[in-house]
Amino acid sequence: MELTKPLQHYYRNEFAHCYGCGYKNEQGLNIQSYWNGDGAVCRYRPELKYSGGKKDIVYGGLIAAIVDCHSGATAAGAQAAELGLDPEKDNFPRFVTGRLAVDYIAPVPLGEELEIRSRIKEIKGRKVTVLSSLFCGDSLCAKAEAIMIQIRDQ
Amino acid sequence: MELTKPLQHYYRNEFAHCYGCGYKNEQGLNIQSYWNGDGAVCRYRPELKYSGGKKDIVYGGLIAAIVDCHSGATAAGAQAAELGLDPEKDNFPRFVTGRLAVDYIAPVPLGEELEIRSRIKEIKGRKVTVLSSLFCGDSLCAKAEAIMIQIRDQ
Repeated sequence: MELTKPLQHYYRNEFAHCYGCGYKNEQGLNIQSYWNGDGAVCRYRPELKYSGGKKDIVYGGLIAAIVDCHSGATAAGAQAAELGLDPEKDNFPRFVTGRLAVDYIAPVPLGEELEIRSRIKEIKGRKVTVLSSLFCGDSLCAKAEAIMIQIRDQ
Repeated sequence: MELTKPLQHYYRNEFAHCYGCGYKNEQGLNIQSYWNGDGAVCRYRPELKYSGGKKDIVYGGLIAAIVDCHSGATAAGAQAAELGLDPEKDNFPRFVTGRLAVDYIAPVPLGEELEIRSRIKEIKGRKVTVLSSLFCGDSLCAKAEAIMIQIRDQ
């Protein structure tokens, strides 16, 4: 499956209002995830207002938020590939979060570009489990597991 | 331990920059948690921009963020009580997140006031485990477990 746009840009209009990644939410974070064949990659540089308790590190809640959106997009890409869909023509799958677990391994410096690499642990019908690693440069700063559930209405 | 202010207002200046709950972050969410004797309660009404994929539900990433800050504050309150500190005079404990796991049980309607009730599962030295339940009205919408780690420098 080859895609010309970020995964989130294949969501249907009514599912594209997400503060984290929806193209219809003009005040949002605009997180974008790119399918790479067996998973997805997201690069994101948080604005300086998203500090944690200390001024020079990234807010843990924002890290959870980025991982949440990126996991949903990765699940959608994987499900589309699994079902042999053509995202340019077919309805693109849309997922909600069933469970999100983030392990914070090291403080994330604020101001840097972060890279989140995600891959699929399991696809079981409408349930897709996504594993993610968040890097700042070469440093692994967080790991996450997300159980994403595909919305039935499609 | 009786407190006159939200737990977050006892954080020292250098730890009060959090986008979620820091009193020194003027662009942040200003999440406030109130100690109730054996845990803490937070009430929060998200702004309408914090929608999920659909326009009328709350963004899951925001839910994780609220729970993150509230869990850290609950851990700080519990540790202060455990150690017999007087938050009005002594240095108040400050925690970072080791692990955050959120189970999303039901969609959270956007525009409503949410209530997050947290209690302590375990205090083990500098590691405090916090259990949270997020309600919208009488509906339990999410549950969470957070492992919070106390910063050594205090």
